[in-house]
Amino acid sequence: MADTLDALEAVIRERRTGDPASSYVAKLTAKGRAKIAQKLGEEATETVIAAIQDDRAGIVSEAADLLFHLAVLLADAGLGLDDVRAELARREGVSGIDEKASRHAD
Amino acid sequence: MADTLDALEAVIRERRTGDPASSYVAKLTAKGRAKIAQKLGEEATETVIAAIQDDRAGIVSEAADLLFHLAVLLADAGLGLDDVRAELARREGVSGIDEKASRHAD
Amino acid sequence: MADTLDALEAVIRERRTGDPASSYVAKLTAKGRAKIAQKLGEEATETVIAAIQDDRAGIVSEAADLLFHLAVLLADAGLGLDDVRAELARREGVSGIDEKASRHAD
Amino acid sequence: MADTLDALEAVIRERRTGDPASSYVAKLTAKGRAKIAQKLGEEATETVIAAIQDDRAGIVSEAADLLFHLAVLLADAGLGLDDVRAELARREGVSGIDEKASRHAD
Repeated sequence: MADTLDALEAVIRERRTGDPASSYVAKLTAKGRAKIAQKLGEEATETVIAAIQDDRAGIVSEAADLLFHLAVLLADAGLGLDDVRAELARREGVSGIDEKASRHAD
Repeated sequence: MADTLDALEAVIRERRTGDPASSYVAKLTAKGRAKIAQKLGEEATETVIAAIQDDRAGIVSEAADLLFHLAVLLADAGLGLDDVRAELARREGVSGIDEKASRHAD
Repeated sequence: MADTLDALEAVIRERRTGDPASSYVAKLTAKGRAKIAQKLGEEATETVIAAIQDDRAGIVSEAADLLFHLAVLLADAGLGLDDVRAELARREGVSGIDEKASRHAD
Repeated sequence: MADTLDALEAVIRERRTGDPASSYVAKLTAKGRAKIAQKLGEEATETVIAAIQDDRAGIVSEAADLLFHLAVLLADAGLGLDDVRAELARREGVSGIDEKASRHAD
């Protein structure tokens, strides 16, 4: 059984070249990379707000919107969640996800 | 075989209560919700920038950072990727992910 | 002659308690702090995108939107641009704006 | 007497070509447009967080950081606050800032 995120990605890939009049993915994709990126930024801001408000239902809803638009962005760049999974696995490798990530700490 | 994202999430859950001196996840978690949300926002901005620059390696790297910090945030709220998957699957339901998402179009 | 930013702020203060049906400021203010903050985040993302695209007209337009919504947010918190000016002047004080700001460098 | 924002902008213009070792503005400018834009995005996220937390001192401090980095970005694009003021005044023109801004409402 396919993972929900992979199923989502398959739907996005199928619809992105569809009819903008009937598909949000097609409509957003037709507007171009900048508009897709803008939507990603918006959903991230909404996730931040839900997080600070400690609105658990809001966090889930906004995180879903964020992942959805991240998948649309990846598809627009000819990439997919598997590329991101591979990057995360690579970091996890010898010294672990956490150690790699610590290079971003401040 | 576990999905990489689930493996990542398991690592995060294990480390978040660990020693802040040796774990980035523990250190970030100890700083509190606002700092975690701030990092999510930062990674989203970096993903947006890589997307506009059409820097494919950068998109993958920043998307990995974004997913990593989203998983840390979800864990901090007692939530997980499965909650987000369930929300996405719920939206997908009868009329499809795309139709649900279209309510966000502008 | 009043500074344009002060004139903008005066207009915002006058309109925020006005009729949401005829005033964007009143409508946005009525939606509450989270919605105002969300709009600020959106305009910041659009400014970032215009900056990366090196779209000079876009930068000016988005920066205007950003300042507009910052003024709405400040007004909503009972604050004003003069509070921000005072903070910037305070930092400038003995050792200069730049030195103070350098504490944020990474 | 110069407006604080204009004084800030003059300082930024003077220092942006200075020594990166002793000036934050010079150091950030040397890193390039993307890094300046990234910092703007970060400060916007921090302003959003302070706004949701209703942390008035935080709002003032983060708004100061946001304006500071906006001025650095404008300078990097050969623009200035006066360009933004002109855009805001233009919108204000016949029908008022508020009406123009209402075109952004959703």
